[in-house]
Amino acid sequence: MKRIAILGSTGSIGRSALAVVDAHPGRLRVAGLAAGDNASLLAEQIGRYRPRVAAIASAAGLGRLKAALGSSPTAVASGPEGLVVVATHPDVDIVICASAGTAGLEAVLAAIEAGKTIALANKEVLVMAGALVTAAARRRGVAILPVDSEHNAIHQCLHGRNPSEVRRLVLTASGGPFRELTQGDLERVRPEAALQHPTWQMGRKITIDSATLMNKGLEVIEAHWLFGVDAERIDVLIHPQSIVHSMVELTDGSVIAQLGVTDMRLPIQYACSYPDRWETQLPTLDLARAGRLEFHQPAHDRFPCLALAYRALRAGGTVPVVLNAANEVAVETFLDGKLGFTAIPRVIQKTMDAHQVEPVSTIETVRRVDRWAREQALDEARALELTV
Amino acid sequence: MKRIAILGSTGSIGRSALAVVDAHPGRLRVAGLAAGDNASLLAEQIGRYRPRVAAIASAAGLGRLKAALGSSPTAVASGPEGLVVVATHPDVDIVICASAGTAGLEAVLAAIEAGKTIALANKEVLVMAGALVTAAARRRGVAILPVDSEHNAIHQCLHGRNPSEVRRLVLTASGGPFRELTQGDLERVRPEAALQHPTWQMGRKITIDSATLMNKGLEVIEAHWLFGVDAERIDVLIHPQSIVHSMVELTDGSVIAQLGVTDMRLPIQYACSYPDRWETQLPTLDLARAGRLEFHQPAHDRFPCLALAYRALRAGGTVPVVLNAANEVAVETFLDGKLGFTAIPRVIQKTMDAHQVEPVSTIETVRRVDRWAREQALDEARALELTV
Repeated sequence: MKRIAILGSTGSIGRSALAVVDAHPGRLRVAGLAAGDNASLLAEQIGRYRPRVAAIASAAGLGRLKAALGSSPTAVASGPEGLVVVATHPDVDIVICASAGTAGLEAVLAAIEAGKTIALANKEVLVMAGALVTAAARRRGVAILPVDSEHNAIHQCLHGRNPSEVRRLVLTASGGPFRELTQGDLERVRPEAALQHPTWQMGRKITIDSATLMNKGLEVIEAHWLFGVDAERIDVLIHPQSIVHSMVELTDGSVIAQLGVTDMRLPIQYACSYPDRWETQLPTLDLARAGRLEFHQPAHDRFPCLALAYRALRAGGTVPVVLNAANEVAVETFLDGKLGFTAIPRVIQKTMDAHQVEPVSTIETVRRVDRWAREQALDEARALELTV
Repeated sequence: MKRIAILGSTGSIGRSALAVVDAHPGRLRVAGLAAGDNASLLAEQIGRYRPRVAAIASAAGLGRLKAALGSSPTAVASGPEGLVVVATHPDVDIVICASAGTAGLEAVLAAIEAGKTIALANKEVLVMAGALVTAAARRRGVAILPVDSEHNAIHQCLHGRNPSEVRRLVLTASGGPFRELTQGDLERVRPEAALQHPTWQMGRKITIDSATLMNKGLEVIEAHWLFGVDAERIDVLIHPQSIVHSMVELTDGSVIAQLGVTDMRLPIQYACSYPDRWETQLPTLDLARAGRLEFHQPAHDRFPCLALAYRALRAGGTVPVVLNAANEVAVETFLDGKLGFTAIPRVIQKTMDAHQVEPVSTIETVRRVDRWAREQALDEARALELTV
């Protein structure tokens, strides 16, 4: 029996993780749950899974949670400390980290120090602090298992292979809904259109990141830290059908790919079952029915976010922190209808240009640069704001 | 330095194997060569690679070979015994077996007994005597590494995985040149048209097998013996582009595929380098350029050879020997212009129907049933002969 904690249990990944628990009642037990501010759903989850411990982001949320729970054997807490309590609870074996922001980062670092296996679904953790996190994991002998479908695919493709056999990693990208648009069309894209993703159902922010290809850029940085491969050896290939989840090219030119249906329960289950693999009742891939698989080079000119991410990875240090923070601000401003779609990369680039790189030596550095970048990006976004 | 013997060195696989040796002079050395009847090419190869030992099929061939060689430090022999001498020479580490027929089978069994690693490019060996060959390999602790691109792909996909993780194997097939033809069109197919293969350059017999899908049927039987997976868990999927060389579906529904350019040097090098993997200078797969990958279910009604192979595998014992022998006779008669394309499976089926299955307990059984099936198939073919 593996005991899991889910950070971000009320979100899309968190709910998929609970569905995996439902499918394997004899193998998985929920020991901890943590959520942002959805107190009513968290209360429902606590009632159903009876974890040892639960946490919610705000003190106000904690009040609502306690009211909704009534008397419960589950210990509840709030704030970043609450998240850490859930992530480090002695009855937890695996921490599924799907909660966003620097709070998630702190909780992951604490979980690593506590020797927990990390199932990582939060890109920011490695983008912001890959050096810190991977050094801590190595020191504590802790596995970081990727839940992102692309990195999960690469983890499966690399399984049992010597790192010296690997020539390059190829991350596939759906290309988002605007793959075929001209530059002119892209300038007129509205938030509603950007929120329609062709193959995956995801949250708002990641859906926009998918449309700008920043999502893939963040994944390139994540892949660097997870697999110890340099930017020069990580490629991105547009694959609109999202059936080939990613690939590894080996030194003899042979390519190993992982394919599957687009269902987050699969990579979550993989991380929970690893190093074993469990049966699923999920629909299996029917390639004859799927029809054609297509692959294209990404259009770097129309989707500059991807190149910005490569630039941040090559620059190293705090630059990916700035990339990530500026992107969050730009996307939020775009979703508020106050920034054009093509201004998103402009805000990020200007913020990166204004930054003086420094090494990521502590989590404090990450926090400070993250705060600075958000303010700077907000200024840049205001300067580019739509006047409509 | 690995020392290799090539059985069938003047054929397509043999010449590719020598190209692999050329590309890795510091890692591979040719210790033995054996060929059918191309004495002049064999003499040229002996002159260039200076093996310890060489063999040619016939006594007449040996005469021509000696004349062509003049004085040479290479010991030469002929006949099935010659093949065994090459396959078991003490200076040989790996035997690449690409020579056809029962002579190839006997040489492989002898090489296994002598403890050599087998790089197998001859389907008949496992189709005719899979039980004998795999039992001998297990007993002697000898590895059989598949050189057929499909099985080689599966070997790569399975690498390091627990057999209990495997749900099914999926062999891809180009579908041959007649994939789109109607039954009526198939009845009018002439040998010249059947010899045009869309993606691979191969010998005449295997090209026809590819057009009838018998090649894939033989591969299903081969896969059963190589990977210990039953007929029910081996599927065939038509994939006209031949880029995905084969796939493995795992218990959680995840699919691992091996992709690559269509060049036999890759699987040959893989078998020679295993368990390591060496750099190549071969062109790498460019998926963005390859365009679309398509997958279809095979049309069993129009290509009955595939179902005949499954039937032979399920029946077991000597039935696959009959399938293989009857197919060879039928294809030869077709290539002579004396049998219709759609009569090939009819000859095989009638021969199988006339056979009383028995266990494959010795190589003598294989030889006897093989001879019987060839005579029977010749009779069946005569009865169906074209009168044009």
